[in-house]
Amino acid sequence: MFRNVAVIGCGMTKFGRHDDKTLMNLMTESSLRAIEDANIEESNIDALYVANMLAERLSHQTLIATALADQLALHSASADRIENGTASGGSAVRNACLAVASGAHDLVLVSGGEKMTHASREKVADMIATMNHPAEYVQGVTLPALAAMFARLYMRKYGVEQRHMAMVAVKNHLNALKNPCAHLRRRISLDEILYAKDSDVKNPVVAEPLRLYDCCPISDGSASVVLCSAEKAKKFSDTPIVIAGFGQANDNLGVYEREDATILRSLREASRQAFNMAKLKPDDIDVAELHDAFTILEIAESEDAGFFKKGTGHRALEEGLTSLGGKLPINVSGGLKARGHPVGATGVAQIVELTWQLRGEAGARQVAGAEKAFSCNSGGFASNMVAFVMERSG
Amino acid sequence: MFRNVAVIGCGMTKFGRHDDKTLMNLMTESSLRAIEDANIEESNIDALYVANMLAERLSHQTLIATALADQLALHSASADRIENGTASGGSAVRNACLAVASGAHDLVLVSGGEKMTHASREKVADMIATMNHPAEYVQGVTLPALAAMFARLYMRKYGVEQRHMAMVAVKNHLNALKNPCAHLRRRISLDEILYAKDSDVKNPVVAEPLRLYDCCPISDGSASVVLCSAEKAKKFSDTPIVIAGFGQANDNLGVYEREDATILRSLREASRQAFNMAKLKPDDIDVAELHDAFTILEIAESEDAGFFKKGTGHRALEEGLTSLGGKLPINVSGGLKARGHPVGATGVAQIVELTWQLRGEAGARQVAGAEKAFSCNSGGFASNMVAFVMERSG
Repeated sequence: MFRNVAVIGCGMTKFGRHDDKTLMNLMTESSLRAIEDANIEESNIDALYVANMLAERLSHQTLIATALADQLALHSASADRIENGTASGGSAVRNACLAVASGAHDLVLVSGGEKMTHASREKVADMIATMNHPAEYVQGVTLPALAAMFARLYMRKYGVEQRHMAMVAVKNHLNALKNPCAHLRRRISLDEILYAKDSDVKNPVVAEPLRLYDCCPISDGSASVVLCSAEKAKKFSDTPIVIAGFGQANDNLGVYEREDATILRSLREASRQAFNMAKLKPDDIDVAELHDAFTILEIAESEDAGFFKKGTGHRALEEGLTSLGGKLPINVSGGLKARGHPVGATGVAQIVELTWQLRGEAGARQVAGAEKAFSCNSGGFASNMVAFVMERSG
Repeated sequence: MFRNVAVIGCGMTKFGRHDDKTLMNLMTESSLRAIEDANIEESNIDALYVANMLAERLSHQTLIATALADQLALHSASADRIENGTASGGSAVRNACLAVASGAHDLVLVSGGEKMTHASREKVADMIATMNHPAEYVQGVTLPALAAMFARLYMRKYGVEQRHMAMVAVKNHLNALKNPCAHLRRRISLDEILYAKDSDVKNPVVAEPLRLYDCCPISDGSASVVLCSAEKAKKFSDTPIVIAGFGQANDNLGVYEREDATILRSLREASRQAFNMAKLKPDDIDVAELHDAFTILEIAESEDAGFFKKGTGHRALEEGLTSLGGKLPINVSGGLKARGHPVGATGVAQIVELTWQLRGEAGARQVAGAEKAFSCNSGGFASNMVAFVMERSG
């Protein structure tokens, strides 16, 4: 790349249920926060990327990048909407990086947002399943169904047990308690969700072996970042965070076509690209945000991103290595599982969380001395994966 | 920009009605043609951009950039879908330019496609109206209704008459006769569509003063291009065509909010950016593809892109300046009006046509000696505009 890129501003809404706000309200709110945080005049923004998956069907709007540009009076800026399913956020950030790196744009705003909670669960499940291969979709295979089959394979091949998946949920719920933006802020215990028949916490089967607490919630929310060239970032921010590397790759759209479905090929390639560009390796990373739409995915991703040997992610989790205070804290934000998953916002929210972490501004969930960070954002069932490596500069 | 970008390969399907092909069939077909034309190994493509507006609602698919990457076995490439309404094609080409210019990608494929003819007209009209400002949308204001009001204002302010609009249709239908890829290949005359009551050609009112022949058809089709850095383009092509400049800008989403609705502010800004980057001026242009979704738009765009003084585009048209053989032939492909308008494909098809023109490969519709070209692609009612200036290199 010809220019390094830095994050100079971040903003988020609370994730959760926002009955009183439209998608455009949410994206405007997080955008204005990011612009304020970046300490720039919004009229200097010369490109806008919007990440969103479902506005056509849930808000009856297309061309929403222009709608947001109009709200923010960015009429001379370019405005593009990126839709890559649940990886829309990461894809939009990556394209914003290219826009800055190209030299064509100097100050770029990325806003990811989704408004989902007003739709029925059945409708949302159907819309999420439109990411699947048509051959799987027409059989009624939804994303939770794919995740369930993946979990079964994973359990058989690597000895993962149901309690390991539940441990991801317990950890991420604990982290979310420390994140004011999180959707689900309720402490849960392994006992409650796995064993207690009369527990207050209901944990019904969604798709065997996945239970409710193995799945992320449906959320509304928005997250935004302002990017600029690393060289100019010092003008705007005392603590610019450099996007040192990124990568993006695909797997077979149909999970049925994958040679070994337990291997996340898209992530292996995307993280390889990101680490190569950053000239860093997985061992260098201090904090990571992974795409835990299902608990089993956090375990698998912690392996295929390169942090743990294949088949040992659940042991690292069990040993506490991925907890706050461990060797590599994962999803200290609460992750998709507990921070919530407004799908278009998620990939951007990961970058926001890691920026806060690298700035040392993450409050009660701060990873002490974090200097290098990693994120991955998945579209479909790991069909399209976007990875980032970020670094505190100077 | 840090690197100049060139088109080294083009491919298109016929535009029209494709009952027997899916959206993915169409995009695969045009992609393979572009790859073959570029004379490259497809495994060397390292980024894919897909332009599409309506697949969620009409093909029940999201994440289609990954679906196409999977069809073409581009698993290690990045894959992104851009949706900017009817400007999706231009936006995707612009982002592909940034990807090459950034130095992060060397060979980038852009594929635009839409499959629309299987849906009812009412459904398509509704979906196209989702680009409008919600305040206009909820009043039932469709895109043809906006265009009709625009035409009325334009007629009153600049003395344009119904026959001028019809002249655009006659000219573009005549051009389409020479384009094997065009949807509507039928010669029409002014007499037939304006005056002859008993004509075979039915030309009913769509939205007064717009008649059927003032509106583009609903089409299926796909167009693709392969981009690479201008420096490396000579390795692959004897006739690389340089994308010398591009621009993108927005207007108020609500046409009701515009100070003077007859002025296409988004186009003025986008073309200013494109000409600045190219270090050229409108007078340098030999051939142009404009976004004539409605005949009145071609007239207005020919002015706001800078080719003719405001309010005189209809006179230039009347004098034959914009006909094949005239000073500035416009829409020699047939334009949206007669080549057809599969919305996600249109902006890419404009780049394909201009590449053919600048290579001297446009057959019967070749503009003799064309060296410099211009295109504009509009999202919504000129709410988001993407403009390009292209040049024959060396």
